[in-house]
Amino acid sequence: MNALQQARQSAVAARARYRGGEIAPTAGQAPGLTQANMISLPREWAYDFLLFAQRNPQACPILDVTEPGSYSTVLAEQADLRTDLPLYRVWRDGRLAQELPDATELWAQHTDLVSFLIGCSFTFETDLLEAGIDVRHISEGCNVPMYRTNRQCRPAGRLQGEMVVSMRPVPASRVAEAAKITARYPAVHGAPVHVGEPALLGIEDVSQPDFGDAVSIRPGEIPVFWACGVTPQAVVMASRVPFAITHAPGHMFITDVPDSHYHV
Amino acid sequence: MNALQQARQSAVAARARYRGGEIAPTAGQAPGLTQANMISLPREWAYDFLLFAQRNPQACPILDVTEPGSYSTVLAEQADLRTDLPLYRVWRDGRLAQELPDATELWAQHTDLVSFLIGCSFTFETDLLEAGIDVRHISEGCNVPMYRTNRQCRPAGRLQGEMVVSMRPVPASRVAEAAKITARYPAVHGAPVHVGEPALLGIEDVSQPDFGDAVSIRPGEIPVFWACGVTPQAVVMASRVPFAITHAPGHMFITDVPDSHYHV
Repeated sequence: MNALQQARQSAVAARARYRGGEIAPTAGQAPGLTQANMISLPREWAYDFLLFAQRNPQACPILDVTEPGSYSTVLAEQADLRTDLPLYRVWRDGRLAQELPDATELWAQHTDLVSFLIGCSFTFETDLLEAGIDVRHISEGCNVPMYRTNRQCRPAGRLQGEMVVSMRPVPASRVAEAAKITARYPAVHGAPVHVGEPALLGIEDVSQPDFGDAVSIRPGEIPVFWACGVTPQAVVMASRVPFAITHAPGHMFITDVPDSHYHV
Repeated sequence: MNALQQARQSAVAARARYRGGEIAPTAGQAPGLTQANMISLPREWAYDFLLFAQRNPQACPILDVTEPGSYSTVLAEQADLRTDLPLYRVWRDGRLAQELPDATELWAQHTDLVSFLIGCSFTFETDLLEAGIDVRHISEGCNVPMYRTNRQCRPAGRLQGEMVVSMRPVPASRVAEAAKITARYPAVHGAPVHVGEPALLGIEDVSQPDFGDAVSIRPGEIPVFWACGVTPQAVVMASRVPFAITHAPGHMFITDVPDSHYHV
């Protein structure tokens, strides 16, 4: 069995555990395979969202779109999107209504859901680690810190909202290399959108992320910000979308696609 | 005036000439600025097309999508998509009905057209030339050769069809570099989809392109194939779309966006 087959076997095993009820962040699971953000919307909202994603490709790089009502994806042909993520969020009229580990019943009630699978910056973290750049939330064993910003996305139809970013502290001498490495993954957020000066992004206190966990920033390190696939959740809130299901931050969909597939 | 300002001035001048009635291929015009393929469809077909593009990003990398009925784009804010391309094609029920230099009247009859501007491989040709790789249709002063293939695109809704490719002959010793250079432009078709062996793509005779002009292939050169933005025209035909306006092959929309913007 080669390395890819082994990774796929651990992806199948992880999805089976989540299907069985396990709830845990997915960072570090099935290393080498791409993880994806998910948002599922009624068919009637699908065009607006697909256009929003096209207009905001750094925040919403689309990896796959399902047929209305379908819960399968080319990114992992045996997977079931209703059950195979560890934790889902349910949104009603732009408000977080519920978190739950199994969305089967919601799919039965909303029969025309279109699911969007969106690239996740976890994909390029392996490359950062291999270049000797510490990925702090991995070394500190927590979720990546994410922040709402003052940067408005380009609106589409009924959808608008601000960009959400993830942050990784990088030593000043390695910032250029971190930018270069991640730029070559445009399908999973690509290069940083902002380097240093959190206040200019509207972030008052980097120790207080809006999603995920705070990480330590050491002397000589610069906070580097990448567009984040949680942006659609901010957009659902800001646009008061009547109904949506998303992954819970950090609780991603593990695909069968190798990270290297998205390397340019 | 810097180089970018000069290029933009020549883009404005070229668009004004086409608006005034000039009909000519756009290769070599406003060098350094991105040129785009265009397809305009009734609103009712927009979701299917946007999804088709998402599923076939090498053939249909979307640079911008207009609002229904609008003929302006963020890619060139002063431009008018009804008049600023040198030549348009009109498609009815999947058949080429007409070629004409001004589409204003059609826009008046079809009031909800959504226009898709799609990356064009002209963007990376400057980089090929700078690397000393001859771009044959430029040195021979003709249109790039384009071919229908046996490679089916991934369908979306009512849209399906085969991929169209463009071909450039490259010396065997430079093929890898041509692949490397173009791979870094994923928004304008990216890396080749096929190298050598035209028959495997269903191309019986490379001297008989389906669109554009034949170019000479010299001893020691390999025909290299890139996905082509004429693919949507093959899809319109294969899917019998009731109404569409496109650019005529080689007669592109010249934007104000520098080629380097799409370099990863």
